[in-house]
Amino acid sequence: MEKALKEITPKSEDFSQWYQDVVRKADLMDYAPMKGFMVIKPYAYRIWEFIQAELDARFRATGHQNAYFPLLIPQSLLQREAEHVEGFSPEVAWVTRGGEEELAEPLAIRPTSETIIGAMYSRWIQSYRDLPVLINQWANVVRWEKATRPFLRTTEFLWQEGHTVHRTAEEAQAETLQQLQIYRETLEGLLAIPVLAGVKSAGERFAGAVETYTLEALMSDGRALQAATSHFLGQNFARAFDIQFLDEDGTLKYGWTTSWGVSTRLIGGLIMVHGDDRGLRLPPRVAPIQVVVVPIARGGEREAVLAYCRQVLARIGAIARVHLDDRPEWTPGYKFNDWEMRGVPLRIEVGPRDLANQSVVVARRDLGQKTAVALSELPATIERLLAEVQAELFRQAQTYLRDHSYAIADLGELEAHGYRGFFWANWCGEESCADRLKELAGLTIRCLPLGSQPEPGQGCVVCHQPGRHRAVLARAY
Amino acid sequence: MEKALKEITPKSEDFSQWYQDVVRKADLMDYAPMKGFMVIKPYAYRIWEFIQAELDARFRATGHQNAYFPLLIPQSLLQREAEHVEGFSPEVAWVTRGGEEELAEPLAIRPTSETIIGAMYSRWIQSYRDLPVLINQWANVVRWEKATRPFLRTTEFLWQEGHTVHRTAEEAQAETLQQLQIYRETLEGLLAIPVLAGVKSAGERFAGAVETYTLEALMSDGRALQAATSHFLGQNFARAFDIQFLDEDGTLKYGWTTSWGVSTRLIGGLIMVHGDDRGLRLPPRVAPIQVVVVPIARGGEREAVLAYCRQVLARIGAIARVHLDDRPEWTPGYKFNDWEMRGVPLRIEVGPRDLANQSVVVARRDLGQKTAVALSELPATIERLLAEVQAELFRQAQTYLRDHSYAIADLGELEAHGYRGFFWANWCGEESCADRLKELAGLTIRCLPLGSQPEPGQGCVVCHQPGRHRAVLARAY
Repeated sequence: MEKALKEITPKSEDFSQWYQDVVRKADLMDYAPMKGFMVIKPYAYRIWEFIQAELDARFRATGHQNAYFPLLIPQSLLQREAEHVEGFSPEVAWVTRGGEEELAEPLAIRPTSETIIGAMYSRWIQSYRDLPVLINQWANVVRWEKATRPFLRTTEFLWQEGHTVHRTAEEAQAETLQQLQIYRETLEGLLAIPVLAGVKSAGERFAGAVETYTLEALMSDGRALQAATSHFLGQNFARAFDIQFLDEDGTLKYGWTTSWGVSTRLIGGLIMVHGDDRGLRLPPRVAPIQVVVVPIARGGEREAVLAYCRQVLARIGAIARVHLDDRPEWTPGYKFNDWEMRGVPLRIEVGPRDLANQSVVVARRDLGQKTAVALSELPATIERLLAEVQAELFRQAQTYLRDHSYAIADLGELEAHGYRGFFWANWCGEESCADRLKELAGLTIRCLPLGSQPEPGQGCVVCHQPGRHRAVLARAY
Repeated sequence: MEKALKEITPKSEDFSQWYQDVVRKADLMDYAPMKGFMVIKPYAYRIWEFIQAELDARFRATGHQNAYFPLLIPQSLLQREAEHVEGFSPEVAWVTRGGEEELAEPLAIRPTSETIIGAMYSRWIQSYRDLPVLINQWANVVRWEKATRPFLRTTEFLWQEGHTVHRTAEEAQAETLQQLQIYRETLEGLLAIPVLAGVKSAGERFAGAVETYTLEALMSDGRALQAATSHFLGQNFARAFDIQFLDEDGTLKYGWTTSWGVSTRLIGGLIMVHGDDRGLRLPPRVAPIQVVVVPIARGGEREAVLAYCRQVLARIGAIARVHLDDRPEWTPGYKFNDWEMRGVPLRIEVGPRDLANQSVVVARRDLGQKTAVALSELPATIERLLAEVQAELFRQAQTYLRDHSYAIADLGELEAHGYRGFFWANWCGEESCADRLKELAGLTIRCLPLGSQPEPGQGCVVCHQPGRHRAVLARAY
């Protein structure tokens, strides 16, 4: 049953194939027997749990509570908000049979839960005293996608969806932006993924939203990934679902709602931002294994080296997630490759000479550097190195993003950059120009960056009419 | 918008109505617009999170990892294990349409995941070195039930399902029993629910299992609740899904599999074991709010009392989950009722006199006792009382279980006990007697308690032929 660590396709040669190689070889997922579905294997699921833990703590600290709403939504409910149903109905999976009976009304598997949650909120909210309602849900959703790709776009995915109701538009707007900020801090601080925050153009907005805020990340092939969205829904859903409250002044008013979410797609972003030709590179804060210890010894030395490895584990077991790879059937070289593929931030190599010197060799996954470290200094060094790797991955991703951001005044400039990167440009605001952008160059308007202004005196990058917005354009996942 | 705390139906008068009143009045759930579906509200979801955290830590400590498998299962896969499909197909919800297309093969929403997981395991397992596989999944499942009841039996519910593969039958058996023990410790230690551990009779076994182990709890109306199950699946699923491995001796062998799960049904058990005529009583370890502080003050004294309440919170905020109920619109009496309904284990009452004495009054939800406690002694007292309430609820439930367990030799004895309780009896082992038991008295064989022996010289409680097993009979949820 010997299996060799197969080479993966170099990133530069075929990024898409590289991605598919990495998700499989790093043991992150497997394809399910049904087209478009995947299994999230333990190694990737653990990363998701770290993301969940961080977000959940932040949601709770800002007053949100978790709840659980039904998976299935009656067709009539899904159709209540006109734009919403138009946006989602092409993607819905329908349950038409339950047990032995045909259902009188088909039930949609939730593609998102504004409708079922709106229906419940209208029953729960009577008075201004019931507001704000701040609820989050961790759940699976299904969207019948034509083209799928592991983590990035799958028929089923896991996510969290926050759904809140407020007394005023200002409060709801503040909530929308607060949640965007939580996402930003989590993406940058935990996943080491720098992002651009902005507002979506009308054509890219969530179906039914007044305003959609987004975080856009740049993958290492120069394509954008929409990493998180936060929607100010105005009173659209409140009117459609009759979410009204009696205000302090004695009048009945519609609530102002928001929704916001991130999904297991973030794992895809993590791979594409940090991965290299040797596989995954994980930021220590989300690495299931932060340090792997690999014994290097043959024959008679094996037992003594293994015992020394266990000493190493005992020293650092409390400050890091450490794993001892004592599989006798593999060579150290194979193990090095294997754990590099899985993106483990630090590797500790332990041979007979290290035992004699009471030291170890520590290798960094991010930069490939090796250093000898005295056993007595190991805990402090590991702690420092983990922080350094986390910072270095973020720094590299920031540099990449900066180096691949271009200000352009004409679509003709795209070709020189291979159409890859974030292109800052003026835009007239017409959807027809957004459509032409897509047709001509395959780019979409990712967002209008928060706080940005159109470049004075420059016209729209497409039609050269007056530029009303500064927009960031990119090819996107 | 004044709303009064409505009386709930007394338990003794109508247990079923009492239960429905409590789940609504304690704000645990709401009915969804689709028959059989419910919303788990934040207060109940928090309880589920405590259960999850406890189990998850125990699963991890015994070497299990979490993963995520698809929600939908192709019909052909579901049909692969003959007994399994026979057991589950009447309960399956079917997806027949995805987006705009009719599906060539209907997809089942998972009623349980042995089949899809089995299909994946057969791809992942090649060698004995790949074993054991120890994976757990937190997920939602759907079973198309005809009669539903909040938490206890709903069309969709949340659960965890562990699925493991082992090299030998002995290992798989040991896993099955280890997980049963984890459930037992969690039920008794966390939820304060005493349980009876046993093995299911063939007629009550999980569809496809060789042996099903169960924990049976006794609700306070004398009916049983199957609280947790752990299945030894033998090689049934391994054969159906071709889960084979090359053993060290060079021969190809089928793996031995197990599965085990608990669900949000446990919340129903929690309510029915501990609740009383004033509502819920929560064991402190799973109480979202362990201590509620209620100020009792009017007019000019209000501010001083509230400030003192905040001092109380500061003292005990680190040792307990504390909530200050400073809603100005409700009277203290209303608040007392409200928090009793929600089962908060301890209430601290704070009035002007308490402020003057630098003390507070602490009331226990379990026994109703009130004590004055000096502020300086409050942290130690709260810690002690929380432990005492936890122990007292368990003690009361144990007493109830013991007092409602009866040894019987003939079905005629059931009537004197109102058919309620755990009835220990000999059973010949014939399913025909189990069927008669159900027809004649509405009881089922809950389990054959682990380590039990038939009472010598006594015949089967139904047919009076030789009694081969000791069985526990009960009416069940």
